[in-house]
Amino acid sequence: MIIVADNIQITNPVIAEAVNKMNPDPICKMAIECERAGADMLDINSGPLYREAEVKMRFLIEAVQSVSDLPVLIDTANPVAMRAGLEASKNITIINGFSLESKKLDLILPMAREFDTCIIGFLLHPNSHVPSNADERFQVALEIFSAIQQEGIKKENLIIDPVLAPVSWQDGLSQNMEILSVLNNLDDLFGFPVRTIGGISNLTTGSGPIRKKRLVEKTYIPMLANSGLDMALVNVFHRESVQTIKTCRSLLTRRIFTYEDAG
Amino acid sequence: MIIVADNIQITNPVIAEAVNKMNPDPICKMAIECERAGADMLDINSGPLYREAEVKMRFLIEAVQSVSDLPVLIDTANPVAMRAGLEASKNITIINGFSLESKKLDLILPMAREFDTCIIGFLLHPNSHVPSNADERFQVALEIFSAIQQEGIKKENLIIDPVLAPVSWQDGLSQNMEILSVLNNLDDLFGFPVRTIGGISNLTTGSGPIRKKRLVEKTYIPMLANSGLDMALVNVFHRESVQTIKTCRSLLTRRIFTYEDAG
Repeated sequence: MIIVADNIQITNPVIAEAVNKMNPDPICKMAIECERAGADMLDINSGPLYREAEVKMRFLIEAVQSVSDLPVLIDTANPVAMRAGLEASKNITIINGFSLESKKLDLILPMAREFDTCIIGFLLHPNSHVPSNADERFQVALEIFSAIQQEGIKKENLIIDPVLAPVSWQDGLSQNMEILSVLNNLDDLFGFPVRTIGGISNLTTGSGPIRKKRLVEKTYIPMLANSGLDMALVNVFHRESVQTIKTCRSLLTRRIFTYEDAG
Repeated sequence: MIIVADNIQITNPVIAEAVNKMNPDPICKMAIECERAGADMLDINSGPLYREAEVKMRFLIEAVQSVSDLPVLIDTANPVAMRAGLEASKNITIINGFSLESKKLDLILPMAREFDTCIIGFLLHPNSHVPSNADERFQVALEIFSAIQQEGIKKENLIIDPVLAPVSWQDGLSQNMEILSVLNNLDDLFGFPVRTIGGISNLTTGSGPIRKKRLVEKTYIPMLANSGLDMALVNVFHRESVQTIKTCRSLLTRRIFTYEDAG
């Protein structure tokens, strides 16, 4: 599993203030720390950026890429910010992401072809509601695949995000069991090994004791890995979760193992 | 997943000495501690018991059952000891176990019908060699199922042990990946939901740093749970592994979750 840091996000007050004041230092520091903590890629979640979207996104990308050569995921629903990010980025770039919502199909999806980048498709209904079971998710997945093909985007450039449910939701566990089953069967559905990403931090949003939240996170990660998840979007400062991902990575290979390979 | 303690075993010098001297106290103490640590069942691994097999096994079972009402697994390849254990046990009892080796088919398997107990079948070739891939394991599984039926044992009384490989084996990781796939498909193969057990401690036998061994253990457990493993034979004094099993148990349900349910 590829480790994608979800730490550079506007909901973090340090990042919000840095973006607001156009001060690159806290962003550079965060990018360096994420890389040191084991990130293989960096998600840059700018939020919607209502004002000065282009300037702010360019600033964010340039700050991160002044200190890191890691691939980046541009994580915004604002098409203006997305385009500015894609234009500013000099590293490998992934669009995060689109759904069947018409605004996203019209304004975000075409950029994946224009910039020849990978793009993440969320398994959500057009109204952004979460599908209620595995069958609905398969249906949405097929519609996303069809949208990709209609747009002339290479199928290899699609990454599916099944949208993990918070365990505190009334049907969170049940939804996540359906998602594990969807992950197990997605390659068969599509007829090729489609890549997948999951937002690990999503699992434990809401209130709850930290130790138990981390335990939930560490327990789901190997289940997701075993079901074929390719990329984990995760808080890379959760050291034990990163260790778990690295251990999954070692165990789910056919190489010869030494304990050096764990964690 | 049901937690089966593997702690009461003759390879532990404390247990060996207690059996040797017929001193029940260390065995009672261990049984109580296992129950306190979260065990749902107790595996009683007496080894082959070359001398006084009947007396020693009866002593072991009676010591354990003087302090615990938990179901027990009688874990010996010695048919004389097995019979003595089955006769002495007053709690739910599981035979652990048999393979396609002719001595076990002839002498151990029939006791499952005679005593109407569950019995564990190891996915091993008749010469006790480990199958080299998933297809061979399916073949062995079918032969085990056929042996059970020929013997007139209820299919519900069969528990399959796919025999987890030590990760330090040259092909250990590859074997365990095959085993995860076997677990995923065993119900389809048999046409009913067959129960399964895995020896978690097997994964990390041999030398290696303890912290990394525990990490491997904690990482495999959710993968096995996600592939449908029903029972984990585990050192219940590995607190984090037990927490992980309990968390798997909570997450793989369709109940409403609260963080109280984790670990």
